[in-house]
Amino acid sequence: MERKRICMVGTGLMGGSMALSLHQEKISSKVIGVESDPTHAREAIELELVDEIAPLHEAIEASEVIVLAIPVDAMVRLLPEVLDRVNNQIVIDLGSTKSLLVNSMKGHTRRGRYVATHPMWGTEYSGPRAALRNAFRGNAAIICNAHESDEDALQWTRAMYSKIGMHLLEMEATAHDLHAAYVSHISHITSFALANTVLEKEREEQAIFELASAGFASTVRLAKSNAEMWVPIFMQNRDNVLDVLKEHIVQLQRFRECLEKNDGECLGKLIKESNKIRKIIN
Amino acid sequence: MERKRICMVGTGLMGGSMALSLHQEKISSKVIGVESDPTHAREAIELELVDEIAPLHEAIEASEVIVLAIPVDAMVRLLPEVLDRVNNQIVIDLGSTKSLLVNSMKGHTRRGRYVATHPMWGTEYSGPRAALRNAFRGNAAIICNAHESDEDALQWTRAMYSKIGMHLLEMEATAHDLHAAYVSHISHITSFALANTVLEKEREEQAIFELASAGFASTVRLAKSNAEMWVPIFMQNRDNVLDVLKEHIVQLQRFRECLEKNDGECLGKLIKESNKIRKIIN
Repeated sequence: MERKRICMVGTGLMGGSMALSLHQEKISSKVIGVESDPTHAREAIELELVDEIAPLHEAIEASEVIVLAIPVDAMVRLLPEVLDRVNNQIVIDLGSTKSLLVNSMKGHTRRGRYVATHPMWGTEYSGPRAALRNAFRGNAAIICNAHESDEDALQWTRAMYSKIGMHLLEMEATAHDLHAAYVSHISHITSFALANTVLEKEREEQAIFELASAGFASTVRLAKSNAEMWVPIFMQNRDNVLDVLKEHIVQLQRFRECLEKNDGECLGKLIKESNKIRKIIN
Repeated sequence: MERKRICMVGTGLMGGSMALSLHQEKISSKVIGVESDPTHAREAIELELVDEIAPLHEAIEASEVIVLAIPVDAMVRLLPEVLDRVNNQIVIDLGSTKSLLVNSMKGHTRRGRYVATHPMWGTEYSGPRAALRNAFRGNAAIICNAHESDEDALQWTRAMYSKIGMHLLEMEATAHDLHAAYVSHISHITSFALANTVLEKEREEQAIFELASAGFASTVRLAKSNAEMWVPIFMQNRDNVLDVLKEHIVQLQRFRECLEKNDGECLGKLIKESNKIRKIIN
């Protein structure tokens, strides 16, 4: 793979980690960061996530590939503007929702230069200081509506994700958003709601702090996640998220009914059903 | 600490891990396992969790300390029988619920020999093969109703937990069960229900398998936990668990209402509230 000059729009958790991987795998000859937050811009340089920081238009002109790693609401606003300015560059987004973005680009004269992707990796932290080396390795990268992208742009994107250690899947944006609601978005809602439950009822914060076991920490850790990132995801994937959330409340009510009836057999059945997840998740 | 002969009733995840710690920290001169499941008994020997397997009555007679590491329903049945048979031995249980057990022992002539404890550690796996070295280090061990135990039994139990790396907390059984509902039991219910949600709605198991990110895995991993262990915990701590579960459903409904109203500001507020967990959980 010939090294390319890459513009990274957004130098937080996702963009910063991606920049580190591009550098480490010798995919980039240079990474030019675009960052609206001055503190983050300074941190991205200090942490050597990017080689320099530049204004968007300059960075686009100086690059062969533009990667967008910003919250999905900003993505929907910025992507058309970026596509308006590219000639032959490749534009890739890393957003967690895909339908709205892909639909809003339909018919754009430069649509072929854009590849809609979602690398399935993240942590509950945000900003350049949250960026990690070898972040994406072992996880899935999804490419959506590949048939709407130019072949060279697709090829490069596939090669890039393979090189940073991801396995590729391709699907339509609508299928992506449905699956993402199940395997990612609902986990965040349950975690946020669990944190609120415990914070609401357990007034003795010291008790939570002292007693919290690894099990609690693992179910609640996503509740540290950033509202600026997650509100737009939930809003853009609203119908799917709402559908899963309703089902999740139904499932919790089944547990509640078993408990109200003091019915251990009923609880046992529900738990044994859920144990089927053992076959699926390591 | 003088090494003691210890009887371990139950050689699964908890008992097996405890046996490994007792041996490693030179607390035990010998660990005699009591195990009703013949496969587990054989595994406990093969894995060198225990030095030998013996029938309960023989093991009690041959030991200075008896540790009960069995599901909490079996614990309530077995503890009185064990206490009936001890002379000056120390009896410790590792159960996740404490009120029913402590209340059922009130007035027993040997009550002083018994120390009610809950080491706050576990994994989603079970059986002797799930036993881990250095399992308890860094977590809290709770001693309940310490005033009902003899001083020498308490001293030894405190020293033992310190030596295997746990920090000690003492509280009444009723307070323990309330806190445990918040920082442990509810996490298991949300995880079981989340697994059922995804298994119910996401018919493409392959998609879950391929797409599942670390976030999903961490919120759903407790759903691998054993019904035989967890049903009795939920039943014994029913009122507290039901109370927390009701609040959790209310919290999820708040997210649902924000989504139904397409209200991003409302979602943002809920998420920012939940972010307060950052101060409490590392």
